[in-house]
Amino acid sequence: MSKHDAVEVIIAKRDHGELSDSQIDWVVDAYTRGEVADEQMSSLAMAILLNGMNRGEISRWTAAMIASGERMDFSHLSRPTADKHSTGGVGDKITLPLAPLVAACGVAVPQLSGRGLGHTGGTLDKLESVPGWRAALSNQEMVDQLESVGAVICAAGDGLAPADKKLYALRDVTGTVEAIPLIASSIMSKKIAEGTGALVLDVKVGSGAFMKSLDKARELAETMVALGTDAGVHTVALLTDMETPLGLTAGNAIEVAESVEVLEGGGPADVVELTLALAREMLAGAGRGDVDPADRLADGSAMDAWKRMISAQGGDPDAALPTARETHVVNAPSSGILTRLDAMAVGMAAWRLGAGRARKEDPVQAGAGVVWHARPGDAVAEGQPLFTLHTDEPERFERALESLEGGYDVSADGASYEPTPVLLDRVG
Amino acid sequence: MSKHDAVEVIIAKRDHGELSDSQIDWVVDAYTRGEVADEQMSSLAMAILLNGMNRGEISRWTAAMIASGERMDFSHLSRPTADKHSTGGVGDKITLPLAPLVAACGVAVPQLSGRGLGHTGGTLDKLESVPGWRAALSNQEMVDQLESVGAVICAAGDGLAPADKKLYALRDVTGTVEAIPLIASSIMSKKIAEGTGALVLDVKVGSGAFMKSLDKARELAETMVALGTDAGVHTVALLTDMETPLGLTAGNAIEVAESVEVLEGGGPADVVELTLALAREMLAGAGRGDVDPADRLADGSAMDAWKRMISAQGGDPDAALPTARETHVVNAPSSGILTRLDAMAVGMAAWRLGAGRARKEDPVQAGAGVVWHARPGDAVAEGQPLFTLHTDEPERFERALESLEGGYDVSADGASYEPTPVLLDRVG
Repeated sequence: MSKHDAVEVIIAKRDHGELSDSQIDWVVDAYTRGEVADEQMSSLAMAILLNGMNRGEISRWTAAMIASGERMDFSHLSRPTADKHSTGGVGDKITLPLAPLVAACGVAVPQLSGRGLGHTGGTLDKLESVPGWRAALSNQEMVDQLESVGAVICAAGDGLAPADKKLYALRDVTGTVEAIPLIASSIMSKKIAEGTGALVLDVKVGSGAFMKSLDKARELAETMVALGTDAGVHTVALLTDMETPLGLTAGNAIEVAESVEVLEGGGPADVVELTLALAREMLAGAGRGDVDPADRLADGSAMDAWKRMISAQGGDPDAALPTARETHVVNAPSSGILTRLDAMAVGMAAWRLGAGRARKEDPVQAGAGVVWHARPGDAVAEGQPLFTLHTDEPERFERALESLEGGYDVSADGASYEPTPVLLDRVG
Repeated sequence: MSKHDAVEVIIAKRDHGELSDSQIDWVVDAYTRGEVADEQMSSLAMAILLNGMNRGEISRWTAAMIASGERMDFSHLSRPTADKHSTGGVGDKITLPLAPLVAACGVAVPQLSGRGLGHTGGTLDKLESVPGWRAALSNQEMVDQLESVGAVICAAGDGLAPADKKLYALRDVTGTVEAIPLIASSIMSKKIAEGTGALVLDVKVGSGAFMKSLDKARELAETMVALGTDAGVHTVALLTDMETPLGLTAGNAIEVAESVEVLEGGGPADVVELTLALAREMLAGAGRGDVDPADRLADGSAMDAWKRMISAQGGDPDAALPTARETHVVNAPSSGILTRLDAMAVGMAAWRLGAGRARKEDPVQAGAGVVWHARPGDAVAEGQPLFTLHTDEPERFERALESLEGGYDVSADGASYEPTPVLLDRVG
């Protein structure tokens, strides 16, 4: 006889009750073992989405997901560790320059990343456009690289929070992704199990993000910061803008190229600003707030770390990046100021060009994506290129162009333009 | 490419939207065909339970479930048809005397019944305690018996509302049974597909019923009456008490015996009262409100119809009914008035004695059940039998006795006794 019963747990949450520690431990474990069926967990997930969980329940749920697998430990490394997690956005290549930059400042970065699904890109997909680079490392390879290079970006092993892996796949097909307790516990179970000492969360807000409103984003940030803090991980969150896509590129190889520009001391101002802000938080969390990451960007040591990080995982940092076979240029319809560029529109266009995938098992095109030649506030001239679309399959242009329709505004005098800062708020 | 997508439909209801006719038609059909997965439908069912459906949505959902299978038609019979559905209670054997009684009044009763699950008994389980009787009839056998006898009680064929069959089994294991839109559409899809001309709903209220409060029961009744009326079925509902179990027996063969007593002109007053009230509604709905069913009970024609109905389905109406191998008597703890007898306590005891089943595939014991020797308001004497428990397996007595504990009150002066009518309200 089981300690609990799936229907009992579902009904408790359905009827606005608080789940007990014992109910949470049992249901997460029984689901991982297959004793609780998918149709029972999805019904529970919907009840959680609609009726919520309090801090105690979310904390226990997170702990139960961590307990479903192995837990890594980097406390024996010769330097402190810090990691960053972004809730996902369009053109968000920040991990690429950030990890080597923080490593160059003396803090190790054990970055477990994911692949993209839907309109937001995945860090691993982007790095896989670098010839030779591989995402899968053993735990020992990860530890060795953290000692030798100081930064590693790789796929999470199957042993880390398997309950989350199973639950995430279920939520994706049952309309239960957008539940703050489940989003927070999913992210934090992996990050806590990963064993980082400090964690900086980049919670995106806006059309291209999961969280469309600042209030919802702040609720998610506060929930995650509390979970991390309770688990002994120094955790802070930045709320950052995702109404507008980051930088000037969304795709895979084209985002790697933009990241390399940043490491070379150039790159779009917003990407540089966000990279430095996150680096400062990571360094402060790891007890190295005395180091200024801007210096390491300027003196080339961040670029050195990048090259060593790519090489250590089989990649050739000096090889030419793949390019798409076909391009299509969209010209500015009139002269004036670009007053709006919608992150979701750009993300959907990049996805439809082949940079992202519709199903987990789909491949992505290394060269596909969107380059925009102006950012909101910039002047544009009628007939001059505004977007360049890249894909290997020209039949994709039509639907990508549909995505861009209505996704930007050009105004003659720019009167309606309101600049939005990248950094909106800080929690922690 | 599908017309719709399961996640889109789930999210629409999750976010408090109204489902379109096209979404409802698609999701019910796709679920029946297996294109929408169980884990998607359970998540949608939980969203419906928590966020509701309006009248239009429930009506369309019911129509979609009817459309998933065949629809019977009795309009060519030589007499009008009327059926009754009870939402389920303890000791609810009313269908047994009611169907032959209404047939004896000249209205045909095409009663498709179910088996019990949990603490409420099933009409088919009860009748199967009659030696030789069989529940499975072909559609042609059903039509022939309606012409020859005027009443048939049998199992619903697999062709009737298969979407409901599949969805009901799913709701049972996912904590989504208690949703009024889903309860109403489940009942009414089967009753409308069954092709009855008139329908009387017996909506039970109280501890032994699905609906614990009069408000919820009225909401369910109003929803079902509207669905029936919209579908052209003359539908009314009676709200009836289920705080106290019906009659003096809960089980299978012992309920058949009590039903035969009613047909012989005796039986407990509440069973007779409810049987006549439902019969009058069925007759009125079928346009035969001029016939008084009390006359047909008194003149023996209802008993004749019962014998012909049982015989037509292979049963021997004169054979001795099975009895349980073991009995256990519970005596009254003190002398006074029985002021309370809880339907749920009695139902659980009967279930634990073997009258009901825990899983669909379990058998039931024909002789098992509970007989109570007094009803609320009756005087009892210390040391005299209050309950007799029946089972083939004496190891079941202990847990059955636990169920009865606290399930009744005897008071010396009966001051706390408040008589409750059987008939609480009428909708339609």
